[in-house]
Amino acid sequence: MRRIAIIDVGSNTAKLVDFAYEPGRSYRQVDELRTVVRLSQGMGDAGLLRSEPFERGLSALRTFASYCRATEVDDVVATATSAVRAASNGERFVAAVLEHTGIDLRVLSGEEEARTGALAAANAFSTGEAVVLDVGGGSVQLSRLAHRRFAAGASWPLGAVRSTETVLRGDPPKAKSVKALAAAAKSAFVPWFDSHVADGPLPMIGMGGTLRNLANVEQARSSYPLDLLHGYRLSRDALASLTEELLSLSAAKRADLPGLNRDRADIIAAGAVVIGEALAASGTDAIDVSGQGLREGLLYPYLVPGGEHLLDDVKAFSIRNLMRQYHDHSAHNEHVRALAWRLFDALASVDSLASAHALDSDARALLGHAALVHDIGMAVDYYRHEHHGFRLAIGRALPGFTHREQVMVALLVRNHRKGQIDDGGLGSLLADGDMETVKVLSGLLRVAEYLDRGKAQRITSLLVHVGDGVVQIEAQADGDARVEVHAAKLRADLLAAALTMDVEVVAGTSETTTHRATGEASG
Amino acid sequence: MRRIAIIDVGSNTAKLVDFAYEPGRSYRQVDELRTVVRLSQGMGDAGLLRSEPFERGLSALRTFASYCRATEVDDVVATATSAVRAASNGERFVAAVLEHTGIDLRVLSGEEEARTGALAAANAFSTGEAVVLDVGGGSVQLSRLAHRRFAAGASWPLGAVRSTETVLRGDPPKAKSVKALAAAAKSAFVPWFDSHVADGPLPMIGMGGTLRNLANVEQARSSYPLDLLHGYRLSRDALASLTEELLSLSAAKRADLPGLNRDRADIIAAGAVVIGEALAASGTDAIDVSGQGLREGLLYPYLVPGGEHLLDDVKAFSIRNLMRQYHDHSAHNEHVRALAWRLFDALASVDSLASAHALDSDARALLGHAALVHDIGMAVDYYRHEHHGFRLAIGRALPGFTHREQVMVALLVRNHRKGQIDDGGLGSLLADGDMETVKVLSGLLRVAEYLDRGKAQRITSLLVHVGDGVVQIEAQADGDARVEVHAAKLRADLLAAALTMDVEVVAGTSETTTHRATGEASG
Repeated sequence: MRRIAIIDVGSNTAKLVDFAYEPGRSYRQVDELRTVVRLSQGMGDAGLLRSEPFERGLSALRTFASYCRATEVDDVVATATSAVRAASNGERFVAAVLEHTGIDLRVLSGEEEARTGALAAANAFSTGEAVVLDVGGGSVQLSRLAHRRFAAGASWPLGAVRSTETVLRGDPPKAKSVKALAAAAKSAFVPWFDSHVADGPLPMIGMGGTLRNLANVEQARSSYPLDLLHGYRLSRDALASLTEELLSLSAAKRADLPGLNRDRADIIAAGAVVIGEALAASGTDAIDVSGQGLREGLLYPYLVPGGEHLLDDVKAFSIRNLMRQYHDHSAHNEHVRALAWRLFDALASVDSLASAHALDSDARALLGHAALVHDIGMAVDYYRHEHHGFRLAIGRALPGFTHREQVMVALLVRNHRKGQIDDGGLGSLLADGDMETVKVLSGLLRVAEYLDRGKAQRITSLLVHVGDGVVQIEAQADGDARVEVHAAKLRADLLAAALTMDVEVVAGTSETTTHRATGEASG
Repeated sequence: MRRIAIIDVGSNTAKLVDFAYEPGRSYRQVDELRTVVRLSQGMGDAGLLRSEPFERGLSALRTFASYCRATEVDDVVATATSAVRAASNGERFVAAVLEHTGIDLRVLSGEEEARTGALAAANAFSTGEAVVLDVGGGSVQLSRLAHRRFAAGASWPLGAVRSTETVLRGDPPKAKSVKALAAAAKSAFVPWFDSHVADGPLPMIGMGGTLRNLANVEQARSSYPLDLLHGYRLSRDALASLTEELLSLSAAKRADLPGLNRDRADIIAAGAVVIGEALAASGTDAIDVSGQGLREGLLYPYLVPGGEHLLDDVKAFSIRNLMRQYHDHSAHNEHVRALAWRLFDALASVDSLASAHALDSDARALLGHAALVHDIGMAVDYYRHEHHGFRLAIGRALPGFTHREQVMVALLVRNHRKGQIDDGGLGSLLADGDMETVKVLSGLLRVAEYLDRGKAQRITSLLVHVGDGVVQIEAQADGDARVEVHAAKLRADLLAAALTMDVEVVAGTSETTTHRATGEASG
């Protein structure tokens, strides 16, 4: 594993994120240092970093440099955005940083910033066509993602700190100044959408600490049952109601709202207004919160070194990354997936009348994803590992998956061995019919799991006969597969209940396996 | 990591447990196969394994052999206990197993069985002086543990299957036959306790599937807040009430009790009666449930190869084993422990009047254990890793710890970074004053954690001054420790609240560090 420290000096905060990664394979965040620097404080029209913010920024970077030396990371990537970019003494800041800390700060242009965020979005969501909104402290970027590539982007000085300082007046802010901010945002965004998103609304992906914090507050307000920000969908209605509340409160009162980050209390209302205007201009009714942003965008060239730094398949990468977190990359998992898919296909394709289920390719994909991670809970304990695995599968972001999909994968993990099916308290995140899908897929996964009971990939093929209320699964083995056939027989009841058919598992008809199957039946 | 399959052919069940282990360092269970064989069924006074149980046993071992071949374990250890030992055709069974499966089954004597269980108990609990009760399907063993060594032991044919078959009559069992069973158990156990536990009651450690299943039912009845069997304390009163209920129900009705294992429904009542008599004979008021037993006893010669196969320190081993599960064995953890202990000692030892806390060596030990595992939750995700770590720390047995101690360690893990202190819904497992202890220890751990913020062990010593409502912690560093001093300052508020004193963290007084501390203060 290599280690990289990514430093990002924004207008509100300076952050260092330390990632451990293996190029092309996996990564995880190891640490994070965050300092509120408010670089643009008092910058005003003069466009000068004032001495106090200047010193705060320098002090944060000294700390980061100390961290990098101590942890001996392999690479350091350090960037600065809007405040340093806009400041007339930005170059002096960069020079001072280099002199005092040895850190070579690269100042990103507005377009570079937008491109970098768009790369993160393309690798963190399954949506190839989207608009990416990144609200920082100093600036706001909008990007058009087309076929997962950055197609166009722009940047405006409408970040949360800057908007608060330059437009809003009063605490709570006066209605007139709020209107002025909304009008400024509208006049920036509407023409951009007119030029770049002409064919009607696209999904919107949102980045930046302001949006994440708004989502956090909304999750607390609505008692959202998952503790995950990435992939959370914040609706325009919820945002509107939240914005109204934030605007009605003083900064001091806002700080007490559950979920709100105190050091954003003064700037979050401005950010909320700007995001609301972007949503209005886009015509979409929700924004998908990204846990990834500029920093991950800077990571991807290292994680995916070739070409355009795009992951081939975001969901597949997330699942393999999850497996690797728990050192659970095994031939067993791959084999269970192959067996589960074989069963899925055989039961779907008999013919339109006799097919045992009517599930689509999305369901098939979820089955495959769950099959690969079904045993991750063993990292916690063998006993009840299906329950541990369920918690682990909803315990971290799974980029590329919606929360609904992630919950379905987690439920399949929970059901892969035994026990009754229920929604684990997460039913509110599922759509109609999803629990029936989960039940059928769980039944398939469970049979597949036990068909590799010995974890030795002995079952080489499955013949599936469907007819007259009975599914017969004939397992052809390479070698002695008595463990597998016996175990799958015992665990086929869930599949039978899900399909409302009898399910029989028998050993294949070569001479030896017949003998063994008979032996089992009498045992 | 090596792999070992441990096979144990009991009177009720045949089990294979597959462990991965690194001698002297760590182990974890990888898989488990379990078949109900009821070997002693119909054995009666003739003492003959009848043909159906004989074949069931053989079939189970064929399956186990297939598993061992498939998974390519390094070693196979296979034993048989009471039913095979007692059967007049036991040797023929052993020969048939060898011929048909290649497995060389070793028949344990009653004393060997007791010794092996006692070894497991000595390595799974912190109690050096205890009585170990192992209730199997065929036999029951009592052992006296003295200085963690097997001192004496005996075996009686009073196992749950055998007692049910030979003594109990009727379903539900008739009162007269229950009395006969109780009398038989009493006349076996009382003389043994008189001879071997003369100096008054000792803690009792209980093993075997029957006891674990009784504990499981009692946990369900009482809504026990932890999902852990090992270390659960089943009181004599709870057992008496549970036994009464089990005896009043038919086997079919018992099978519906929450937590009860259906394939034990017919034999569990007999087991409960026998355990109750052992408790009565011992004079103790509770039995500590062991998740380990014969199979782990057979593992220890491999896991702890030298001498008597005793772990030096059961708790320390559990903690290190937990760290290794999550690949979190780092110098940072050791350093945080050293810093936390240094603070603990400094604040305790000033003098009897000025000491800032009055915690004892048990609290100090818990602080040390928590310090070593405080970051295990990072295996799940960096964000909220303290919460993930809390779940992981209560997610598996921690041999050597009581549940109360394990909960305290888990709460310290949860509190090591930030957030308010509460009991995590587990307050019913704590004693009076424990939350105050947790608060002080959490405060110490948090300061220690941030004193190694850069994870580079830069703080080399701490000078602690206590006086007049103020604790001053002066950190001497090797190199640039601005990250550490700054971070510890910011996170000292919990310790201050716990001690109701001000807590100041300053850099040490060498010339460079003074300069840095001043730099920080103005930053």
